[in-house]
Amino acid sequence: MATPPRNAISPTRAEDYPEWYQQVVKAADLAEASAVRGCMVIKPWGYALWERIQGQLDRMFKDTGHSNAYFPLFIPLRYLQREADHVEGFAKECAVVTHHRLEADEEGQLVPAAELDEPYVVRPTSETIIGETYAKWVQSYRDLPVLINQWANVVRWELRPRLFLRTVEFLWQEGHTAHETAEEAQQETRQMLDVYTTFAEEHMAMPVVAGEKTAAERFPGAVDTYTVEAMMQDRKALQAGTSHFMGQNFARACDISFSGRDGAISHAWTTSWGVSTRLVGGVIMSHGDDDGAVLPPRLAPHQVTILPIYKSDEQRAEVLAYCQSLVASLAEQSYAGEPVRADIDDRDLRGGEKNWQAIKRGVPIRVEVGPRDIAADAVSVGRRDRAPRDRDSLPRAAFVAAMADTLAGMQAGLLERARQLRAENTTAVRSLDELRELFNDGEGGFALAPMAPDADLRPETAAALGELKVSARCMPLSPEALGVDLPTDLPCVFGSTEDARPTLLARAY
Amino acid sequence: MATPPRNAISPTRAEDYPEWYQQVVKAADLAEASAVRGCMVIKPWGYALWERIQGQLDRMFKDTGHSNAYFPLFIPLRYLQREADHVEGFAKECAVVTHHRLEADEEGQLVPAAELDEPYVVRPTSETIIGETYAKWVQSYRDLPVLINQWANVVRWELRPRLFLRTVEFLWQEGHTAHETAEEAQQETRQMLDVYTTFAEEHMAMPVVAGEKTAAERFPGAVDTYTVEAMMQDRKALQAGTSHFMGQNFARACDISFSGRDGAISHAWTTSWGVSTRLVGGVIMSHGDDDGAVLPPRLAPHQVTILPIYKSDEQRAEVLAYCQSLVASLAEQSYAGEPVRADIDDRDLRGGEKNWQAIKRGVPIRVEVGPRDIAADAVSVGRRDRAPRDRDSLPRAAFVAAMADTLAGMQAGLLERARQLRAENTTAVRSLDELRELFNDGEGGFALAPMAPDADLRPETAAALGELKVSARCMPLSPEALGVDLPTDLPCVFGSTEDARPTLLARAY
Repeated sequence: MATPPRNAISPTRAEDYPEWYQQVVKAADLAEASAVRGCMVIKPWGYALWERIQGQLDRMFKDTGHSNAYFPLFIPLRYLQREADHVEGFAKECAVVTHHRLEADEEGQLVPAAELDEPYVVRPTSETIIGETYAKWVQSYRDLPVLINQWANVVRWELRPRLFLRTVEFLWQEGHTAHETAEEAQQETRQMLDVYTTFAEEHMAMPVVAGEKTAAERFPGAVDTYTVEAMMQDRKALQAGTSHFMGQNFARACDISFSGRDGAISHAWTTSWGVSTRLVGGVIMSHGDDDGAVLPPRLAPHQVTILPIYKSDEQRAEVLAYCQSLVASLAEQSYAGEPVRADIDDRDLRGGEKNWQAIKRGVPIRVEVGPRDIAADAVSVGRRDRAPRDRDSLPRAAFVAAMADTLAGMQAGLLERARQLRAENTTAVRSLDELRELFNDGEGGFALAPMAPDADLRPETAAALGELKVSARCMPLSPEALGVDLPTDLPCVFGSTEDARPTLLARAY
Repeated sequence: MATPPRNAISPTRAEDYPEWYQQVVKAADLAEASAVRGCMVIKPWGYALWERIQGQLDRMFKDTGHSNAYFPLFIPLRYLQREADHVEGFAKECAVVTHHRLEADEEGQLVPAAELDEPYVVRPTSETIIGETYAKWVQSYRDLPVLINQWANVVRWELRPRLFLRTVEFLWQEGHTAHETAEEAQQETRQMLDVYTTFAEEHMAMPVVAGEKTAAERFPGAVDTYTVEAMMQDRKALQAGTSHFMGQNFARACDISFSGRDGAISHAWTTSWGVSTRLVGGVIMSHGDDDGAVLPPRLAPHQVTILPIYKSDEQRAEVLAYCQSLVASLAEQSYAGEPVRADIDDRDLRGGEKNWQAIKRGVPIRVEVGPRDIAADAVSVGRRDRAPRDRDSLPRAAFVAAMADTLAGMQAGLLERARQLRAENTTAVRSLDELRELFNDGEGGFALAPMAPDADLRPETAAALGELKVSARCMPLSPEALGVDLPTDLPCVFGSTEDARPTLLARAY
């Protein structure tokens, strides 16, 4: 037999992180590029991971009083025109539908026919079409709040797509709510930020810094934009979710108004918030190693892969029956409020190949079951948080009984390791020189620096940031939680005379 | 007080069935037309119903070994071109994307810019893009079967859209599978037809006739198309789901081939199967009455609406606490393997208005709880299968304990009533004259007639059917289950000399 490679993924993270990421997405069967530029095919294992993310977020949205609804894929050009008058910086790179028929030309080639009177844009986001609808639904304070979420595909013509992180078409959820008062809308904005924080940390095992965006990074038209920012293993930041307080700006543009308790007509206060399939990229870049993906147990489509080992048809029947009873025993165990999910991989492939596939896909626990194990009522167990060839033989009953604890331990371990990486790579920065030193000569990572919230609107600040390829990620709501020592009375590192706030600066995806 | 209207929906079914349908969709808050021609907004109640349909079907798909995946929204024109060479009759009415940018012209108006080298079509169905992908995935018999389903939005430029029944954009699922042998693919086709039959009858309480399509009604490129056909209350047929055996036709067009167990290269055998948001229309038209929607308990987003009644803040606290404990007691009851779902409607609206809204939305059970009920530990119960003003006061414990039986009885009652309607309106037809009599002068409904499977390809048959506005719905797999007496040796009513099979003929949506 040939010597197995040192690692399943080449290059390693240390050798070439971006290429490592692409190779993990491929090796873990998560997604692949399609023939449509910038659009991906999400493969069954990647989609199952997205379904887990969706299912858990959806429950949290419903528990906080939201309902799902569905709005059209197409947006009439005039809606964007109206928006463009009010808001700068909306996405102009989008797919435009101009015809509604195909016809064969003289040579039998299909060509677009039946031009539309008004072109449609494939939604890059649904603010406008949802706003137009809310304007019809909301007449009185009794119609408020409107608490709606949409799960949908959106299209943005990205020039440099990367699987999951930035694709032309992607899947996401967009919450859009309308409220009677500013306070209620602000509370909603923060509540959904909390939902994203909880989801990232407890479900994805991905620690995040929750904070407010600086002026230059705010969503166009928003009064306040909040974000959760996570550190990937290359120490770059990934924006993992945003929640916007739109004030009355958006209600004014779409004319969402209502007669209040006092009979006066006012504009509603609105919010929006979203996360996308980009989170799948976040899971990979947070936890993956040089052997492939490492999935947190709460998100793993199945937490245990069982590999039956047999040599004859007779053995096969016996081994499969044992495996099935093991699946059933595991399903009686409860982890994080759900039955433990185990899957038998009985495909006609070599055992070593299947074992490595489970490793590359990031399945938390691998179990081999052969006639000898059955005779001993034991299972041979591999864990994704240990070396690939590290295996324990455990009595079946003990293995099953400990499963919830094992998974909880692995989930906590991933979060802890990610927290440590962040702690080791977060630096207090007191001056522009220190910032330059950190990113030009040093290790980079997260910098916590005093900065005026509007400073990045100034061209000289933008230039300094651009030179370092760094951006202001957010003004953390709890800067002290980052564990670095930044005096509170320092001036803005970019020389603004306005009051500075501790601000997270980093290179970002 | 004004006399309440005799019925909540005007017109009634008897007065104007199509308009009744539109009014129920509106009154039940299911959906509304949007500013985008032919595209609808699916409102929270309608979407929650779709989520129930989705969730239950998805479980059935997974229980039969399928995984979900996601493929691009856009299809390169050349894929359709390739398909067009092989298959007649593919959808030419579709949305065509020709540009990928918006720019402001001299007058500040946004206009399409950056023309694509090759236009994209917004998927009217994903056969081609999925087929191209499978061609890459499948190399060996070991890669088979591929058992994948996709939940997605699709677009077909319908000229006469109707909410849920026929919309430009709609939501659906499309299963696409590839197999090693014809037998396996045929078995898959029939298995999914069975899944649709079970779902329609047991979950939607909508009896269906499962059968094979005649030649003219087959899916383009399919060897066999199977369908489930339901009778709506206007006695027209609704095609509620289809399952296609494509033979090797599609694999040949997309070059899905594999090296078999004997080393020889063969084309795979493929299937596809789908249902759409049209099922929501089917629920309404199967069960709705002149007061609005009537939802089968298994599909109702919540099965019980609780209306708290109080006059003071003090009463409010007491009544709401009681209602919450009632929700909890009901959730401890299990119906169809799930906790009973109850919702408290504490909106600031008149009780009568909320009661009628619950009726129009089709909630199975309505409960009023006021201080007097609480004192007696009783609840005032209305059922959607009884008259709106018909209410019983029941001891709370008895009401809760009987809930699963009550819901099961209502679900069975809806199915039984629909079965009766179909039985009363299904007629054996022995000749073209009898068929004409039935549809021109008689009651219409379902006709079971002897017909040759290819007869509707002949122009004279097509003309006869067109004149009656009737089509061949299917050749039932169990014609005897329709309960009409059709001798087995009759010739085709359209005069074909080929062997005739009992065939269902009807007007259809």
